[in-house]
Amino acid sequence: MYENYSLAIQKFLKKGKIEIGDRISVNEYEGVLMPKSAGDPDILVLKLDNGYNIGIAFKGVKIKKLKGEERIFKAKKPEFDKTKPPVAIIATGGTISSKIDYSTGGVRALTEPSELLYNIPELFHIANVTGIVRPFTKMSEDMNYADWQTLAEIIAKELNKDNKGVIVTHGTDTLHYTSAALSFMLKNLTKPVILVGAQRSTDRGSSDAGMNLICSVHVALSNIAEVGICMHGTMNDDYCIFSRGTKVRKMHSTRRDAFRPMNELPLAKIWPSGNIEITNENFKKRSEGKVIADTKFEEKVALLKVYPGSEPSVMDYFVKKGYKGFILEATALGHVPVSAKKSWIPAIKSTIESGIPVIITTQSLYGRVDPFVYSNLRILAATGAIFAEDMLPETAYVKLGWVLGHAKKPEEIKKMMLTNIAGEITERIDPRAFLY
Amino acid sequence: MYENYSLAIQKFLKKGKIEIGDRISVNEYEGVLMPKSAGDPDILVLKLDNGYNIGIAFKGVKIKKLKGEERIFKAKKPEFDKTKPPVAIIATGGTISSKIDYSTGGVRALTEPSELLYNIPELFHIANVTGIVRPFTKMSEDMNYADWQTLAEIIAKELNKDNKGVIVTHGTDTLHYTSAALSFMLKNLTKPVILVGAQRSTDRGSSDAGMNLICSVHVALSNIAEVGICMHGTMNDDYCIFSRGTKVRKMHSTRRDAFRPMNELPLAKIWPSGNIEITNENFKKRSEGKVIADTKFEEKVALLKVYPGSEPSVMDYFVKKGYKGFILEATALGHVPVSAKKSWIPAIKSTIESGIPVIITTQSLYGRVDPFVYSNLRILAATGAIFAEDMLPETAYVKLGWVLGHAKKPEEIKKMMLTNIAGEITERIDPRAFLY
Repeated sequence: MYENYSLAIQKFLKKGKIEIGDRISVNEYEGVLMPKSAGDPDILVLKLDNGYNIGIAFKGVKIKKLKGEERIFKAKKPEFDKTKPPVAIIATGGTISSKIDYSTGGVRALTEPSELLYNIPELFHIANVTGIVRPFTKMSEDMNYADWQTLAEIIAKELNKDNKGVIVTHGTDTLHYTSAALSFMLKNLTKPVILVGAQRSTDRGSSDAGMNLICSVHVALSNIAEVGICMHGTMNDDYCIFSRGTKVRKMHSTRRDAFRPMNELPLAKIWPSGNIEITNENFKKRSEGKVIADTKFEEKVALLKVYPGSEPSVMDYFVKKGYKGFILEATALGHVPVSAKKSWIPAIKSTIESGIPVIITTQSLYGRVDPFVYSNLRILAATGAIFAEDMLPETAYVKLGWVLGHAKKPEEIKKMMLTNIAGEITERIDPRAFLY
Repeated sequence: MYENYSLAIQKFLKKGKIEIGDRISVNEYEGVLMPKSAGDPDILVLKLDNGYNIGIAFKGVKIKKLKGEERIFKAKKPEFDKTKPPVAIIATGGTISSKIDYSTGGVRALTEPSELLYNIPELFHIANVTGIVRPFTKMSEDMNYADWQTLAEIIAKELNKDNKGVIVTHGTDTLHYTSAALSFMLKNLTKPVILVGAQRSTDRGSSDAGMNLICSVHVALSNIAEVGICMHGTMNDDYCIFSRGTKVRKMHSTRRDAFRPMNELPLAKIWPSGNIEITNENFKKRSEGKVIADTKFEEKVALLKVYPGSEPSVMDYFVKKGYKGFILEATALGHVPVSAKKSWIPAIKSTIESGIPVIITTQSLYGRVDPFVYSNLRILAATGAIFAEDMLPETAYVKLGWVLGHAKKPEEIKKMMLTNIAGEITERIDPRAFLY
């Protein structure tokens, strides 16, 4: 029951008839006493009403048992409230499904996805979180297009049941690659699909898993029928933001507000209370109709960064390995070296002449590429390279894989790449979106 | 005299005895009437007192000749004020040395660097801009390490004269690669070195060249003995920011405030008036002593982005081509695929075993890599890969080239890569630096 708490704490709790899951106050804090998987045994873990866990040193604190306790921890499994709207959760691994392994100081995967939900009883007050599907358990850096295909199939299946929306818990490293892939693969989308991760494992006092999941459930019940990522909007636990799956990027290695919308505002701000503020009206509304998983994908696409002294001959290497397409992360407006010792123009030209598309994106990340401003750009454009507007390099990479799964002719590929399919191209960039 | 202005404007100006360089008011605007190189002939170009050019349609405006006119445009060359402190300008090309070529709609290089200075008479009121050196004229996407070496040599020479500082005008695409290179190459730096570019060519109404240059001259006279980039701090023409050369990145393809400090605050905000607000005290102060150009550089370094489905075998390609080092732009904390179908671990391991360093940086750009948090990271760290703290991928790329020019033994290379040489590693990241 009190496993991993110190003997002093265990003794105190037993004496006060306080059990895990009871509502207590610790000095000025009120919340639910949490189970402890590991860590400093003298730190009490308390879940606050905002869904946030805090750790408080036991020594010298005043603890009081309160009414209105949460008994979810005593249940063998979450109690589903069938009067609430149904939402499916698909658990794939990552920090949000991990806890700290104090033997290594690192993080390991939870044994059961339900372990995660036990920690966030609020979820069951909002929605009937019925289907907890676990197609695989992977850290996101180990996922690839085949996992995106698996996910798209499962999500479509769950969306075509009576679920109001689907939530995917996922590692954060490549979360935005997956969100882009699902944006293209889920056709005729009529309900919300929310990808959510955590930057702190669920048993850490500062875990963002709880609030991110609570906000995600609110989005799942909302009117926003888009694929997107729902995570902290700021460093504080005030609100989450829901950003379009094709216009979002992990912009910080550790911060809880690392996922930022790129070149457009987030679609919405979501408070754990359920308040949703639409910040960008450009989204598909919830509607009726069968969602289709259209997952054909060409995996042989390379994403190359271009920089001073970069080696254009690497394109030939990929072509010889049977690669079918390239995304270049060029500089600023889409430049590659032209008059430099190692010009990229011959390699790009011969690649395109052999029928392989070359897409130009910008390593500046914000803003748009443009084939007309400078003469070097016009030389590049003359090779037939496709300037991908304001598409993120990562989104362009995923999109080209998906497009090549559907089209073979250069003209057809170009047309699809320059057609806005899932919000990946923004006609007019809101100036407030820069460094949002 | 009135070349490229419409006949109606020419007639009006002649009648009112208004010449290019005269101070005039146009409706509510006051400023100096500018020469016009090309563009809509019915648009008057006016330089405001903040150094900013605006274009105003001639039709229906009220124009008045004022006192206090600038006659610099009538001079054959700038008049140097020898009582002012000397500053050297090195002109290398780029938008800041370009004007619009209306035959193509694009931009072409100015014939003479002094053309640039003619447009900004304020410069000569602040400093004695004596040495205008033009080592080469290149757009920055065509520059490489050899150009960085040339620049470092010339800058050291100018700094070792009685100049108070050196300004380098430069294209913006790879400006931050050059600033990183000069940061490592200029040893025992005792004076400011300011890299400056423009996002709009000098003859465009919205050109940022003037204000950026004026602010750069103020930095050149300041106490900040660092290599850095001085450009617009906001979308408005209020102030510039000076960001450390190793901690700055072009984060937007077109905005005038595209250059942002990464993982630290800018060193200073600079107003065109000359007001300087230090925003980050962590800089070397101006001092005495000879600056040394230490430019040895190994060009065979590859910068590779790692992403879902990325191809680790490309490392072997570079090794076979004689490459001597790798920077990986990994995900978030420094992850590469480990258990995926295409694991990067074998390629990294064999590369390191053959004595070639592999440096881990993050494509999140903000934040730090860390070899300890997750088991996949520990597997990567066990190969001997070097986790480069919060170093930008671009800075790490330039640094490794410079380090390999100076060290051959793996232990020596590792030590240099993890030693803070030019502010490239930040011990504690100011939270305000995220998305600054």
